[in-house]
Amino acid sequence: MGTSSAASAAEPRAGSGITTAFLGLGAMGFPMAAHLAAQAASGGGRALVWNRTEAKAQDHAARAGSEAVSLADTAQADVLFTCLPTSAEVDEIIAALSPHLRPGTVWVDCTSGHPDAARRQRETLDALGVKFLDAPVSGGTSGAEAGTLTVMLGGPADEIDAASPHLAFAGKVVRVGETGAGFAVKAVNNMLLAVNLWAAGEGLAALGRSGVDLGAALSVINASSGRSNASENLIPQRVLTREFPVTFALGLLAKDTGIALDVVQSAKASAPTLAQVAGLIRAAAHVVGPQEDHTAALKLLEQMNAQEIR
Amino acid sequence: MGTSSAASAAEPRAGSGITTAFLGLGAMGFPMAAHLAAQAASGGGRALVWNRTEAKAQDHAARAGSEAVSLADTAQADVLFTCLPTSAEVDEIIAALSPHLRPGTVWVDCTSGHPDAARRQRETLDALGVKFLDAPVSGGTSGAEAGTLTVMLGGPADEIDAASPHLAFAGKVVRVGETGAGFAVKAVNNMLLAVNLWAAGEGLAALGRSGVDLGAALSVINASSGRSNASENLIPQRVLTREFPVTFALGLLAKDTGIALDVVQSAKASAPTLAQVAGLIRAAAHVVGPQEDHTAALKLLEQMNAQEIR
Amino acid sequence: MGTSSAASAAEPRAGSGITTAFLGLGAMGFPMAAHLAAQAASGGGRALVWNRTEAKAQDHAARAGSEAVSLADTAQADVLFTCLPTSAEVDEIIAALSPHLRPGTVWVDCTSGHPDAARRQRETLDALGVKFLDAPVSGGTSGAEAGTLTVMLGGPADEIDAASPHLAFAGKVVRVGETGAGFAVKAVNNMLLAVNLWAAGEGLAALGRSGVDLGAALSVINASSGRSNASENLIPQRVLTREFPVTFALGLLAKDTGIALDVVQSAKASAPTLAQVAGLIRAAAHVVGPQEDHTAALKLLEQMNAQEIR
Amino acid sequence: MGTSSAASAAEPRAGSGITTAFLGLGAMGFPMAAHLAAQAASGGGRALVWNRTEAKAQDHAARAGSEAVSLADTAQADVLFTCLPTSAEVDEIIAALSPHLRPGTVWVDCTSGHPDAARRQRETLDALGVKFLDAPVSGGTSGAEAGTLTVMLGGPADEIDAASPHLAFAGKVVRVGETGAGFAVKAVNNMLLAVNLWAAGEGLAALGRSGVDLGAALSVINASSGRSNASENLIPQRVLTREFPVTFALGLLAKDTGIALDVVQSAKASAPTLAQVAGLIRAAAHVVGPQEDHTAALKLLEQMNAQEIR
Repeated sequence: MGTSSAASAAEPRAGSGITTAFLGLGAMGFPMAAHLAAQAASGGGRALVWNRTEAKAQDHAARAGSEAVSLADTAQADVLFTCLPTSAEVDEIIAALSPHLRPGTVWVDCTSGHPDAARRQRETLDALGVKFLDAPVSGGTSGAEAGTLTVMLGGPADEIDAASPHLAFAGKVVRVGETGAGFAVKAVNNMLLAVNLWAAGEGLAALGRSGVDLGAALSVINASSGRSNASENLIPQRVLTREFPVTFALGLLAKDTGIALDVVQSAKASAPTLAQVAGLIRAAAHVVGPQEDHTAALKLLEQMNAQEIR
Repeated sequence: MGTSSAASAAEPRAGSGITTAFLGLGAMGFPMAAHLAAQAASGGGRALVWNRTEAKAQDHAARAGSEAVSLADTAQADVLFTCLPTSAEVDEIIAALSPHLRPGTVWVDCTSGHPDAARRQRETLDALGVKFLDAPVSGGTSGAEAGTLTVMLGGPADEIDAASPHLAFAGKVVRVGETGAGFAVKAVNNMLLAVNLWAAGEGLAALGRSGVDLGAALSVINASSGRSNASENLIPQRVLTREFPVTFALGLLAKDTGIALDVVQSAKASAPTLAQVAGLIRAAAHVVGPQEDHTAALKLLEQMNAQEIR
Repeated sequence: MGTSSAASAAEPRAGSGITTAFLGLGAMGFPMAAHLAAQAASGGGRALVWNRTEAKAQDHAARAGSEAVSLADTAQADVLFTCLPTSAEVDEIIAALSPHLRPGTVWVDCTSGHPDAARRQRETLDALGVKFLDAPVSGGTSGAEAGTLTVMLGGPADEIDAASPHLAFAGKVVRVGETGAGFAVKAVNNMLLAVNLWAAGEGLAALGRSGVDLGAALSVINASSGRSNASENLIPQRVLTREFPVTFALGLLAKDTGIALDVVQSAKASAPTLAQVAGLIRAAAHVVGPQEDHTAALKLLEQMNAQEIR
Repeated sequence: MGTSSAASAAEPRAGSGITTAFLGLGAMGFPMAAHLAAQAASGGGRALVWNRTEAKAQDHAARAGSEAVSLADTAQADVLFTCLPTSAEVDEIIAALSPHLRPGTVWVDCTSGHPDAARRQRETLDALGVKFLDAPVSGGTSGAEAGTLTVMLGGPADEIDAASPHLAFAGKVVRVGETGAGFAVKAVNNMLLAVNLWAAGEGLAALGRSGVDLGAALSVINASSGRSNASENLIPQRVLTREFPVTFALGLLAKDTGIALDVVQSAKASAPTLAQVAGLIRAAAHVVGPQEDHTAALKLLEQMNAQEIR
C-alpha cells in the first residue's frame, strides 16, 4: 500500500506560512485552487493563481481570496501546482518558467499526464533544483469542490510525504510508485472506466435488440456481479436519460486510453482487451466528436447496433 | 422497469397452503429450498425437495423441514423450481417428469440457462398445461442463505405476478421481458463480470510490470471512476490473496459467456468486446481448468504477461 | 487430405443418363446449373431447373438447354442441388418437397449454410431415404462460369465419392469431414476473408493518417509477408477504386461470420480475434447496409478513422 | 504510387566508383552486403563491412570480396547501410560514429526500425550533414541472397532517387512517404502477417475441435477467398509439420507489432483488431519464448484451445 492515507490528509495542515501557486483554473483546477486559498488564509500563507485567460484568475482571486499573478511570479511559490489538459501544455509552462524557477520548489502536476513526460519533466526540473511529482486526481468536479479528491502520486516517498500536507484539495493521498506511476495508474483507471462503460453498452444494446426492458436489466445488473461505476452511475444518469452532460470530454478519454496503451507497450505487457477498447474509443471520438461527453462514446455503439440504449 | 419490486417481495407471502417442489440442492439450491420450507411451515403448505444424489435431499428434509420425495412425486407441486447446472439438465428432468406433470403447475427455472432452451421448454410444457418461467438468480450463496436473492424473470407479466409471492428466497424480483429474457439478462450480467474482471486484470498486470504497487493502485481505482464489483471485491479478496476460493466455477462462467454471445448473435447485435472476452474466458477454462474458481481466469492472463497480480 | 481431388474432377464424367435438378438460379446457381445441362447434353441425361421466380428458370432452359419444371417435379432427380441464400430457405424447400421425394435421391446443398442445419437436414431427409451432403462452393461467379469451383463436402466418404462425378461445375472437390464440415469450412474461410480484409483496412487507414502513399504501401505489402487475397485483389480492385461492386453482399458476409462464430462456440474453441471481427462486420452491415458489397465494410472503418482508404 | 520501381532497380547500376559500408552482417545483412561487394567489384568501387563480432566481417571479406574495417573507418563511405535488430542499436552506432562522419554521406537504415527513431535519427545526422533514409526490406533470407528484396523507403524523393541505384540487393524499390514512412509500412506489413497468421490459427483450431481434416480445410481455403501468405506458406510449411524453423524470431515480431501499434497511436487511428492481435503476440512471446520462430505464436493458441493444429 502507498504511504499517506486519507487519515493523514485529514490531519491539521502543515501548510502554515508557505506560498503555493496553482496554474490552470479549469473545471477541476478552479475549486482545487480554492482549497489552497482557504488553507493559506487559515495558515498565514499565500495562494497564487495563474490562468492562460487572465480574467479567470482575477475571478478566482475575487471569489476565493487567492492572488492572481503573472506567470513568472508563480515561480515564487514553495509548492507549484499545474492542472492542464495534457503533458504538452505542462511542457510549455516548464519552458516558459525555467528562467524564473528557484531551487527547492516542489512542482506537483495534477494533469492526467503521460508517464514518459513525467520522467522527462522530472529530469528537466531536477537540473534547476526543482522536484517534480506526478499527482493526478480522481473524484470529478464534485470531489474537487468538496476537497475530497483522491490523489495518486509518483515519485520518491520522502518527497511525497513532504508534499502531502499541502494537498488541501485531497481526501485521500496515495503513493503508487516512482515518477510516472501516478500518471500510469490514472490512465489505467480511465481505461477501465472506458472498458466497463463500453462493455455495458454492448450488453445493453444486445438486450435491447432482444426486446429486454433495459431499465429492468440495469436494475438487476446493478444488484449483481456485473455491476460497475459505469452501470451504476454513468449509464443510468447520462445515457438512458439521453442527456450526455459534458463533464469529461470524449477526446480526453481517448487521450487517456492512448496513454494506458502506451503504458502497456512500454511494459511489454499483454492487454488485448484494453487495446481493443482504446481503438473503439478513438473511433468514437472521430465519429461522435471529441467535445462530447465521454459517455457519448456509446452513440457510436448505438450506430453499430442500430439500437438506442434507452 | 420490471413489474414486481423488492417491496412486493417483502410483503406477506401468499404461499399459504400451496405445495412447492425444489429440484437441485446444490450450493445455491440448498439454502433457496430452505426458504421455501420455512414459508410452507408458516403457511400450512408443503415443500418437497429432490436431488440426483438422494442423501442430499434427506439431509435437507432433516435440517430444513422439507419433504424428500421421488422425482415423480415432485409433479404434485403447484410451483416447481429447478436449479441445475445448465439447461441440458433441465431438459432431462422435463423429459422424465412429463408423464407425471399436471395442468396448472408453474415451473420456475432458476438455472442460469439458455434463452433458446427457455423458449423450447416453455413450448414443450405448454402442451402439458404447465407454465414455464425462466427465473435465474443473483446474489451468490450468501444471498441464497439470507433470502435476499435478485430474481430476473422472463415470461408473461401476469404469470410472473402470480408466481412472485412464492419466491421465498428473493429480496428483489424483476420482470425483464418475455420468455428467455431472464436467462439473457443473467448471461449478460455474467459476461460483464467477466469483462470487468479480465480488463482489471490486464490493467493491473501492466502496472505490475511497470513497478507500480498494485494494492495502492487498486485502492485508488476503487475510489475512482474505473471501479467495478470485480475491482472492489473479487480481485482484492480472491486474486491478490492468491486464494481463488471456488464458489463459482470457471467452466460455468465460460458457459455463461457463451450464452451471452449466443444472445448477441441471435439479436444480430455487434458486441466485439464481449465476444473477444468470451473467447479469452473459454481459453482460460482450457488452460487453467474448468473446476477452478472463475477468478482464476486471471492465471492465464498472468502467464500471458509473465507477471503475477499480487 | 480429403478424398477427391482436382484431378478426379477432371476425369470423364460418369453422369451419363442420370437426371439432375438445380434449385436456386442466382448469380452462382445460374452458371453452375448450365454446367449440369451441358453434362446432361453430352451424356444423355436430363438437367431440370427450378427457381422461385419462374421466368429465371425459363430463361435458363432457353439459354442453357435445361428443362424448367415445377418444384414438385424436381423430386424426380437422381441428384438434386440447392444453392440458396441461407439454410432457412433450404428448410422451406425440404418441407415443400418432402411429399414428393423418392428414396435413393442424393441432395447436394451448395448453399453457404449452417452446420447445425446440415445435421438436422440430413436427419430429416434420411427418414425419407434421401442422402444429404453439405457442399458449399468457392470461386465466385467467374469460377461458376468457368466450371472451376472448389467444392468442400461434408458427409460419409462413400457418398461423397459417389456424388463427385456429378459436380460438373467443380474444378476441385474436397471432402473435409462429416456432415456439416463443408459448411463449417466455408464459414471459416469467409471469416478469414473478413479478418484479412478488415485488418488490412485498419493498417491502411493508420498509414493514410500518417501521410503514407497507400498505393505504394499496398504494392510493398503485396510483395511481402503480410499479403492476402484481400490485400492483393479486393482492396486494390474495389476499395482504392471506390467502386465497391456488389458481387457478394455484406449482409451475407455477416451471416457467414456469424456461422463461423457458432462453429467456434459449438466446438468450445477460443477465437477472440474472429469473434471481434464478426462483431465489427455485423456493425458494418448495420451502418453501411447489408446490400452493399462486402468490401464496403471498410466504409465503417473509414468513419472510425476519419480517413478514406484511397 | 512510389517513385522508383523494380524496373529502375534493374537498370545499370550507377554505383561505379563509390564506397559503400554495410554494418550488421546478420542473416539478412550478410547476403545483402555481398551484393554491394559484387557491385563494387564490377564498378570499380569499394564495399566496406563491419560487424560487432569482427570474425563475421573477416569471413565476409574472404567470401564476398568486401573489406572488413573498423567501425570508425566505415565513416569513409559515400553510402552507409545499417541492418540491425532494432533502432536502439542504430542509435548506438550513430553515437559512436558521430565524430567520424563526413558531410555528404547517405545513411540507409535497413533495420525494421521505429518511425519516431527515424525522425530523430534524421535530425541528429542532418546536423552533421549526413542524410538518413529509413529503408527496411522484405523478402527474407532467400530474397537477400537472390538480390530481389523489396525496399520500402521513407524520405525526400530526390534523396531516394539518388540512393536507389546503390541498393544492389533490391528487386523492387518503393518510396512510401516521408522519413519514418518506410518503417511504418514495414511494421504494418508485419502486423498484417501476425493477424493473418493468428486468425488462420484460430479458425483451424476451431475446425480441428469440430473434427474437420485440417489439411483438407487448408487446401480449400487456399483455393478460396480467405487465403493469405500465412495460410498458403507459413502454416503448411511450419505449423502443420510441427517444425517451426526459426527464420524470424517471435520476439522480433512482437517488437514489430508494437511499432505498428505506436504508428496507430501516433496517427490517432482506430485499429482495434491490430491492437488486439499485438497483445496476443506479446503474450505468445512471453508464454512460448521470444527466440522461437514467429509461427510458434500459434503454440499459445493451441494451449488456449487444447487443440493442436496439425
